[in-house]
Order: sequence, then C-alpha cells, then structure tokens
Amino acid sequence: MTGVRLLTAPTTGPDDLSALDLLAENGFDSDAVLAVVGKTEGNGCVNDFSRTLASAVWEPRLKDDAVTVFSGGTEGVLAPHVNLLVADERGDRRHRRGLVAAAGTTTVIPPEELGRAAQMESVRDTVAKLIAELGIADDDVHLVLVKCPLLTSTDIAGLRARGVEPASEDTYESMARSRAASSLGIALALGEIGVDAAHAALEGRSPAWSNRASASAGAELDSCHVLVVGESDQASNPLRALHTEMRDAYDLDSLLAAAAVVDQRGGRIRQLFVKAEADPSGTIRNLRHTMLTDSDINSTRHARAAVGALVSAIKGDGSVYVSGGAEHQGRPGGGSVTVIYEVDPPEIATANTTSEETS
Amino acid sequence: MTGVRLLTAPTTGPDDLSALDLLAENGFDSDAVLAVVGKTEGNGCVNDFSRTLASAVWEPRLKDDAVTVFSGGTEGVLAPHVNLLVADERGDRRHRRGLVAAAGTTTVIPPEELGRAAQMESVRDTVAKLIAELGIADDDVHLVLVKCPLLTSTDIAGLRARGVEPASEDTYESMARSRAASSLGIALALGEIGVDAAHAALEGRSPAWSNRASASAGAELDSCHVLVVGESDQASNPLRALHTEMRDAYDLDSLLAAAAVVDQRGGRIRQLFVKAEADPSGTIRNLRHTMLTDSDINSTRHARAAVGALVSAIKGDGSVYVSGGAEHQGRPGGGSVTVIYEVDPPEIATANTTSEETS
Amino acid sequence: MTGVRLLTAPTTGPDDLSALDLLAENGFDSDAVLAVVGKTEGNGCVNDFSRTLASAVWEPRLKDDAVTVFSGGTEGVLAPHVNLLVADERGDRRHRRGLVAAAGTTTVIPPEELGRAAQMESVRDTVAKLIAELGIADDDVHLVLVKCPLLTSTDIAGLRARGVEPASEDTYESMARSRAASSLGIALALGEIGVDAAHAALEGRSPAWSNRASASAGAELDSCHVLVVGESDQASNPLRALHTEMRDAYDLDSLLAAAAVVDQRGGRIRQLFVKAEADPSGTIRNLRHTMLTDSDINSTRHARAAVGALVSAIKGDGSVYVSGGAEHQGRPGGGSVTVIYEVDPPEIATANTTSEETS
Amino acid sequence: MTGVRLLTAPTTGPDDLSALDLLAENGFDSDAVLAVVGKTEGNGCVNDFSRTLASAVWEPRLKDDAVTVFSGGTEGVLAPHVNLLVADERGDRRHRRGLVAAAGTTTVIPPEELGRAAQMESVRDTVAKLIAELGIADDDVHLVLVKCPLLTSTDIAGLRARGVEPASEDTYESMARSRAASSLGIALALGEIGVDAAHAALEGRSPAWSNRASASAGAELDSCHVLVVGESDQASNPLRALHTEMRDAYDLDSLLAAAAVVDQRGGRIRQLFVKAEADPSGTIRNLRHTMLTDSDINSTRHARAAVGALVSAIKGDGSVYVSGGAEHQGRPGGGSVTVIYEVDPPEIATANTTSEETS
Repeated sequence: MTGVRLLTAPTTGPDDLSALDLLAENGFDSDAVLAVVGKTEGNGCVNDFSRTLASAVWEPRLKDDAVTVFSGGTEGVLAPHVNLLVADERGDRRHRRGLVAAAGTTTVIPPEELGRAAQMESVRDTVAKLIAELGIADDDVHLVLVKCPLLTSTDIAGLRARGVEPASEDTYESMARSRAASSLGIALALGEIGVDAAHAALEGRSPAWSNRASASAGAELDSCHVLVVGESDQASNPLRALHTEMRDAYDLDSLLAAAAVVDQRGGRIRQLFVKAEADPSGTIRNLRHTMLTDSDINSTRHARAAVGALVSAIKGDGSVYVSGGAEHQGRPGGGSVTVIYEVDPPEIATANTTSEETS
Repeated sequence: MTGVRLLTAPTTGPDDLSALDLLAENGFDSDAVLAVVGKTEGNGCVNDFSRTLASAVWEPRLKDDAVTVFSGGTEGVLAPHVNLLVADERGDRRHRRGLVAAAGTTTVIPPEELGRAAQMESVRDTVAKLIAELGIADDDVHLVLVKCPLLTSTDIAGLRARGVEPASEDTYESMARSRAASSLGIALALGEIGVDAAHAALEGRSPAWSNRASASAGAELDSCHVLVVGESDQASNPLRALHTEMRDAYDLDSLLAAAAVVDQRGGRIRQLFVKAEADPSGTIRNLRHTMLTDSDINSTRHARAAVGALVSAIKGDGSVYVSGGAEHQGRPGGGSVTVIYEVDPPEIATANTTSEETS
Repeated sequence: MTGVRLLTAPTTGPDDLSALDLLAENGFDSDAVLAVVGKTEGNGCVNDFSRTLASAVWEPRLKDDAVTVFSGGTEGVLAPHVNLLVADERGDRRHRRGLVAAAGTTTVIPPEELGRAAQMESVRDTVAKLIAELGIADDDVHLVLVKCPLLTSTDIAGLRARGVEPASEDTYESMARSRAASSLGIALALGEIGVDAAHAALEGRSPAWSNRASASAGAELDSCHVLVVGESDQASNPLRALHTEMRDAYDLDSLLAAAAVVDQRGGRIRQLFVKAEADPSGTIRNLRHTMLTDSDINSTRHARAAVGALVSAIKGDGSVYVSGGAEHQGRPGGGSVTVIYEVDPPEIATANTTSEETS
Repeated sequence: MTGVRLLTAPTTGPDDLSALDLLAENGFDSDAVLAVVGKTEGNGCVNDFSRTLASAVWEPRLKDDAVTVFSGGTEGVLAPHVNLLVADERGDRRHRRGLVAAAGTTTVIPPEELGRAAQMESVRDTVAKLIAELGIADDDVHLVLVKCPLLTSTDIAGLRARGVEPASEDTYESMARSRAASSLGIALALGEIGVDAAHAALEGRSPAWSNRASASAGAELDSCHVLVVGESDQASNPLRALHTEMRDAYDLDSLLAAAAVVDQRGGRIRQLFVKAEADPSGTIRNLRHTMLTDSDINSTRHARAAVGALVSAIKGDGSVYVSGGAEHQGRPGGGSVTVIYEVDPPEIATANTTSEETS
C-alpha cells in the first residue's frame, strides 16, 4: 500500500524535466516517483518520437520499478504536461482514507503475442499482482493505465519471415490491437468480465469494456507498463478518485455529472484521465462523422482533439490526460473516465459544514 | 425584408442534394432558397475540393442572387450537413417578430486586392447594402457570413510576374488575410469600428473584432458571398437569434450562458454558427498549446475539432456550423458565436406561462 | 476495333474542362472520347473529392459508354492533367499498325463483393469482353486500367448491420483490397494466371501479378470502369505501346531500358502509366523505408511522390500517370509500367534510315 | 587540416547508436568523430522530435567540438541512416590528396536575430574560420552543411511581448528564413556573392545561391552547427568530392552527369548531399505542381520524396542525404548537390590503366 501525491507540471517539450524541480520543491527526490504519466506533443501514432524522447530523458532519472506512460497527441487545446505519482508515506493524518498507486511491468511481449491472448493474460496477471500489493478491493480501483507495444514494419516483416501471421499487417492498426488486448486484461483482472467474454471480445465477436481501463500503445517499449490507482483506508491523504464513462465523444453530460459528484463531496478536480475514440459505426447520435474516412488525419487524433476540449473545459485548463483509441475502454464510441480530486480534511470539512449550517 | 425559415439536413457527401427533398416536403421550391450554408468534409484549407464540389452541384439549382457558403472541415464529431435559408413570406402570423436574411455578392476581388483594404471595403459596402435592404437596425443583425477567395500558387506567380507583391506568399496564410479583410469589412458595416481602427487592424497594428462576423475562405470563388441574418418586427416567424463570443477555444461557460438565455426565453436551439482559432499567443489560459507548431495538421483543423465538440454538446448533435480561422471574428484566440433558436408563438407561450402559474 | 489518338492537357483544377478545346482544335467532338484518364490533385485516398469533382464535370460531357478514370494524388513533381483517348477512325493510312482502345463498365459491385472473388470475376469478364471487341490477341494488350469502388464507413456500417463481414474494417485498406481484386481479374483475363493462383493471391496465400494491370480505387463510383489499350494491325496510326515493370520504387534502370527500346524503334514517348507502392516488406534493397510507419502520410502518397519523380524525368515533364497502390500490379514493392510512344510513318522512317545510311 | 573517413550506417530508429559499433570495427573511438550527419524519420518540420531524440542520444557520446546535423524526413524511398565524418590522421599514404573536414558552432542565435543579417554574419564568420583552419582554398570546398534554429510559438510570443517583430509569424516559415540566412552566410564566406547581394537576397529583392550550401533548421538547437567539407593536398585518403546543381526537382540529367564525372575519374559514389524544394513559381518546366497548395503535406516533404527517389537511384540505395527547403542552396526550384566518392590509389589506378592498355 502506497499513499500517493499527484504533481502536475506543464512541459516546454517532451524532454523538459523541470517537473523534477517541482518535485524537489515539494520535498521529494526522484526515488519517490512511482510513475510519470505524460502527454507529449507528437502524433500519438506509430512514428511518434516525442514519446520515445520523453522516455529517454525520464527513465534514467527514475528508480527501476517506476514506470513511464507517455501518451502522444495534444491536439486542439490540450497542453503538454507530466503527472508525477509520488509515494508519500507521511500523507496527512487528518485523513482516514487516501489515494494509493502501484506500478509494474509485464514481461516482454514478443511480436507474435501482440494483440493476442498472451498479451491480455500478461496484463491481467500484472494488474492482479499490483492490486494484491495495494491490498485493496477491486471496487476501490478507479484507474488502470497501461502503456503497451505496437508492431513496426520491421516486426511484421520479421514475423512473416518466420511464417507467423501478425495480429495486424498495418502498423497503425496494430496499436488498436495492442490496446484491445491490454484493456481486456484489465477488465479480467478487475473481475468485470469472464475469460470467455474476454476471448470473444478480443476476437471481435462481442463487445466488452471497462470504464477504468486506459491503454496507450507506442514503439518506445517492448513490455507493458502498468499503473493501478485506487483508494484505500490504509492511506491518509486528501486525494480521491471516481470513475465513469463518456457514452460518446461529445457526452458533456457525463462529465458534468462527474464534476457535480466531486462538488457534492466538497472536492476540487485535480486531474482527469479520459479515453477517446471515433465511433466505429461511423455515426454519433445517428449523424455521420468523418473521422474514419479522413485519410489525412488518423481517427485517434480527431478524437483526442474533440474530447480534449470537453475535458479541458471541465478541469478549466488544458493539462488533462486524454488518450486516443478506446477499444474496450468504455463502450464503443465512448471512453473511460477517471477523475482525481482533492478534498479537505474531515475537521475542516466539518467546520465548513457547520459554518454553512449556522449561516 | 425577407422572413426566413431554416432547414438543416445531413449530407452523405459534398454532392448530396437530398436537402432539396426536405425543401419540397416543406412546400418550397429551390427558388425560395436565399443561401446554402454547409459544412463539407474536406480539410478546410487551400486544396479543399469538397467545397468546390458542393458549389458545383448546388449553384446550378439556385436562383442567380442566392449564395452558397461552404466551409470545409468536419473534424472530430462534426457532421457534414447543409443549412438552407429559405424565404418564407407567409411565416406564422401569430409572431410579431421574426428572423430575416439577405444575400449578395461583391464584385470580383482581384488577387492584388485580396486581404487588403479594397476587399475590406467591398465587403463593407455589400453588407451595408444588404442591411439597408432588410430595413433593420445594425443592432438587430446577429450574423454576417462571408465566403471569400484565397490566393493559389498560380495567383501568386501571376502577381509576381506583374511586379505586384501578394498579401501573402503562402497559400494557406492567404486564407487568413482574406478572412481578416472580410471580417473588418463586416465590423465597419455594423459600425463596430471606425475606418482608422479597421486599417490599423488590417495591418496588424491593433486588435479589433466583431462577434457577429464569420468569414471563411476558399478557392471555389473569386468574389465574396455575403449573408446577413437578423431579427425584424416586420417579419412573423418563430426564429430568433442572439450572438455572443467564446473568449477562448474551450470557453464552455459562454456557450452555456447563451444556451441559458435561449432557455429563459422559452426557445429551443436550432443552429449555432461559431468561429474557432488557435490562440495566436501559443497559449490558452497560460498553458502552451501546440496547434501552431504542428506541421502535420494546420491549426484551423485543430481548432474546429476542439470547438466543434463543445458546440455539438450544446446543440446535442454534430450538425453545427463551426468554421476555422477567427481573425477579427471574436477576440484573438476566441471566436464569434451566433445562436439561431425557435420560440413558441406568444399565445402558446402565454398559455404555457399561465398553466405554469396556475399549477 | 477502334484506332485511337491520345491528347494530353494540363489542368488548372479538377474541374478544368479546357481539354475539350484541345479536342476541338484537333477536329473531334466529345462523342469521340472513349476515356478520360486524369491525375487530380487530391490525396488519392478515401476522402479525395478532387476525383469526384472531376467525374461530376466530365461525365455529363461524354457519351454513355465512355469511361472516366481519375487517379488522385499529384505528389512531388507530378502535374495535374487529363489524357483523352479519342476514337479516330481515319487514322494515318501510312501506318500499317496502330494503338487501339476499348472502354466498358462492370455491373455494380455491392459492398459485400468489394475486394472479393465476385469483383475479381466481374473485372475479368469485362476485360475479356473488351479484348474480344478489339479483336486483338492477349499479347497485344499493353495496359488495362481499372477504376474501382472502395468501402466508406457508411458501407462498412451497413454491412455489419446485415451481419456481413466487410473485406476490410478500414476504409483506406479497402482501397487496397479493391485494387487487388481488380488487378487479379485483369491477370485472369489476360491469361497470365489461372483461377487457383488468382484465388490464392486474393487470399494473400501466394504472390501473383500482371505488368499490364493498373487499378485505382475511389468513392466516386460503385461499379468498375475498365479501359483496355493495345496494338492492332487493323488500325493505322502512329501510336505504339510497350509494357515493363519497375522492380522496386527507385528502379530507374527499368525505365531507362524502356526508354532505350522506344528510342531504338525510332519513337518518342508520349505518356507513361506507372503504378507505385511502398514495398510491403518495409525495406527496399535491404534498407528500411518508413512509408509504412508514417502515420501522417499514407504510403500511397509517399510512393507516388517518389516514383513520380523518376517517371517525370523519363518523360521530361510532370504530366505522367503515376498511381499509388500496386497490389498485383507488378511484383511486390514494384509496379507495372506501360509506355505509349509515337513513331514516324514507315516511308518517313525509311527515308530517315536511307538518309542516315547515305550520310 | 584533418583528413577524414566517411562511415555510413543504417539506423533502426533515431536513437539507434549502432553506428558506434561500425566505428569501433574500423578502429576508431568516438573522440575521432568530427560530425554525425543523419537522416531521421520525422516530418522534417517544426515538431520533428526524431531530430531532438537523435541529438539527445548522440551528443553525450561525442567530444565537445564535434557537431550533429540531423535532417528530418525520409519520405518515399529514403532510408534513415547516419554518416560519421571521422578524423583519420593516418589516411592512406599512397594518395597525394584527400577529403578534409572541420566542424564548429556559432554563438547562440537569439530569436530576434533568426533569419536576419546577424545570423547570416554569424554563419559566415564560422564558415570562414573553419576554412582557415583547414588551410584550403575556397575552391576546394565542396560542401558546407549547417544545422540552424527555428522560431517556436513560444519564441514568437516572447518576441512580441518585448515589442520585437519576428522574421516570420509562422513557425514552419521561420525554418525557411533560418535556412536562407545560413545559406547566404555560406555564400558570403565562399566569396560567391558580395555583401550587398547577400542583403538583397535575404530581403527577397534579388536571387542568389550557392551550389555548395546545405542548411537545415530544427528546434533542437539554438546556435548553428557548421561542417565544412573539401579536398586538400595536405591529406592522403581515397575520398574526393565534387559539387553541382539540380536545376529543378526532377533534373536527372545533372545527377547523371555528376555520376559520369565520378566514373570518368575512376571513382565510386559513396554519398550524395542534395537539397530539394518546391519551385516557388508554382510550376516546373511550365507545368503546374501542387506542392505549394497542398495543405495536408508541407512542400518540403513533397520535395524530399521526389528528389530522394532520383538521388537513391543514382547511388543505388536509399541511404542518401536529401534535405528539404533549398533557399539560396542552388537556384530557385533546384538544389545544391555534393557527391562524395572514393578513388583507387594512384599506383592501382595506374596499374589498372596499364592492364587496360595492354589488354
């Protein structure tokens, strides 16, 4: 169980490490960092070297078991930034509950396993192990973030040379397959779906999704980085989380409803982790969209730009984590949503309530 | 003075004329169409032939003095569609007020005048003439839509061959110059700014904008198409309009406030006309955006995708008119907003009010 | 059997019909046009409305059984232009041989047949019928051009709603499937491969290709337009053709060799029809290329730009027909090549030879 | 004076350092590297982080006065690779001449100087200093490579906040201004143009160019990296160089002529350094090109793809250095060309000649 703090810092580029200064100002050194979760300003697709660059500069600064999750693509109003999840054993004893997180890495996913059952199971096992480490119930988990590999043209050629069919012949499409396998692994680990349903979904035979899964693919790694975030009454800090779902890519109502819950609980939104995708039906609310027929801009870029505006409006600034490609992460055409928020300690909250009651 | 109806129809492609069926179902023939204002699914930039295609199929169907305004780019959740502004002399006599519109065309804007004072003045004069035709006060104008030319590389080479410096050497940038001149012409005609301010703004020496201006550039025409929309107590129909401004590209609050006004007035939103742009400062609310450093996607495409999601959420569907490049159309980084809404006739409204009062 | 002339005209845009003036100057009216084969300046991918625009303006000008083949994408040095294949019964009687062409259209290819055996067979049958009409041997055919449909997201959604799996879930990938089926249909009709080989190739189980096939897909049609070009000793005109293959995307040697053959035969190159693609292995001559991992530019655009420069250099100008996506059109990574050239009449050629001999 | 060897290695990604193995196999350590000149697989434009990534991994491995020049963009058939220019004092004593190179860095170019006279002069001075160090005549210089900064939106906003007008308001256009200033600095240092001509050219008042200049801009540095390559009779090695010019983007003849010269001299081509651009007139050989009206792909990407195919065909493989944006680097629409080739030692050459004579 590790109580955590969340530090969010804007970046001037993928290689901007100034968040380390913020870390120091808050009294931590880089060994306390469990995970760096960032939005970098590449295309978020196969040849996004902004992610690789961010990984290259951050990973040597972190301890071995920390993970990085860089999601490319800050289309529209999104602001490049990093979120540091920092282990904070001290916490704030006035709280009887708090946010916790655990990070880990699967074994290497070889190209022949990418997008297939083996990847799904590998993610499932790592998620399960991390939840066990945290010692919390599945219901207390509000976000499982995964960064997973993709297939390059070199990988695909290598498989074919060995007579193995890749999960996809298209490098961009392989990202979707990888996210799908990871997300179904998360859903399995959380007990949201059974093994049969997971396999059926992986093969495209039936839908299945988790509103707590967030998977992003990249060429910068060959295993899956996993981060589990939840609440625990063993931790003491002001951070809390909730999760919900956007039912489609302009479902503002679900976001407003989540914000209202935070408000009811006396909280202030600190960060949102949201998945976005082009509805695979080619329509939203019975009107045609053109994200899947645009051969100039990939649909994940369109989706991030659109959803990013809504999420930025809810937070009030553009440094939100909106990631494209929401296979099994929220319903088709929609996306999973996790809100991290901060509450006042009980005594203050009580004091506030009292003063309100007396007014 | 021409009272108008607004018919909005989704399109299956830029050459889809099925809105003519909707027109017929409503008892009109194509001679009644004052203007076709559509969103087509191209890139919205220089080489957007979806606009040219839509013009090519629509213009032969319309009477000579009708105008087309096709704005390319349905990024993100936006749905390709057309809006027909239809002259409806009958109207609905229960209303003592109504929406009116007038359309016209400037003379040809030669390449040497593009983006310059001559274009600004040409638009100003045409807008003024149309307002006079409508016989309404400037304050009753809620939207002036302009479709204006751009410079192709052929135009630029032709100018240079004659020793004339073009307003821009870059074809995409020429769209911005054309929108700027058009928008300042609108602001002049509406009396929102004086001649000196207009010239200073055109030369980039000082800011100036109109919240009722909406200009879009394209290679499909060589004059400016102009549409003026306002309210008049000489017309009798259920349509009304209001205008406001997005202060930045995720200013949801301004849109919600406009929707609340419509609601207060017992109205239902029928359409929104909104301009979008990447803040030229490179930041929004002090956080860096990357729309101006993305060499793969032009900033107008980013801006439409982002703002389009907010506007779609407000209307509840994606067939909204969101156009990119908001020079002098709302403040820098923001954009002009016009809402067309429909109200019940007074007796019904009164009846409603009464029934509420008695409940 | 129809002897043909070839008229090539640059265009100022996809809707430029000035080639009709060139036609008239040459003493023909538009009823003589068998086919308009053009390069238009869109992205050559799914949402390329430059092709649709060109079709929309050209088709009403042509007689019913003429065909249009517009291939989008003039990347790099390529110049937008149209080639008119014009029936010329008179010809030039000094020639005892000449170029002939025939055009036709398959029945509608419904979405469930796209990219499948039914499309392949439909193209095969139409090609066979046209060759029979021309009355020439298969060996005298030097080019079969096909323009074929693709799957839009609306098509894909429609198929799924009926429980039918589309040939591809990706609209861009559906173009490749359509080109593949068309090209194998051509190879079948030309007797280059057998039925089993065609099916195996269509299913990706073995390679097969024709160096005379050139297929291009688009959303602007729902059947396949087919043009067969060959030589016949029943025709009398100065045009001749040869075909060869680029073995990879910078195989200049094959092009130079073809040009040398034309030169040996006393000919002057009039046009080249060349297919281009990114080598599916991800490498060319054992070096990695990045066309298949570039998520900003589709590989067909890359390939046209590269091959277009070589072909333009050979012709000496950029108005050449280079089309992207060469599935079964030349070997993998290479592309089919047809050269149309013009020779002097025999007496002149003899006179020339004599004068050379006596000099 | 430093005699050099040239080692060229393909890369698996921008962060691939395996060229260091090749270096070791050749008996050198990284301190011998004068310059790393590479093609990386980004977009070659403003947000190309493949260049930054390559710089980030290479620069810590090199000695302080070595330079990196990473040019982004391997469109079409181009293969990502690096060229190491390695100081080799030993050389091959059988040669009485050899290739030499010197590298250096200007002082920081502040944003207000970018694309202006100060940058031009700074490059001029550094080039002059390096030529002096080499102790060779200007005529013996065959290539001056410069990597120079650009303006980001942050730079532009910073300048405006201080009331300073940037050389361009557009980040992509700022790359052209930076290349222009650098190239004119090179031409000045080489004595190819005078000060007045340089200023006139920088202000766009008259043309001027060097066929030995090759400048590339990027966000990954704030000074200019400069590499001068020439021949010296103080060095002894088998490498030689020549320079020429492509007169337009498909001027194959100039490349073939250069290859013929190499062949005549008994040489084998080792590398080509070529600049490419879209003809600013909008036409090539009087036919319209569409590189300057394509709002989806920047013209530098088009130009690299086209020219890259020709240059790859000449070398016989795709690992050539073709860089986009040829302002003052070869005539307008053309580009500078440097060929590095290898000759046999004189005795072998003589022996060869003798044996040929006796055969």
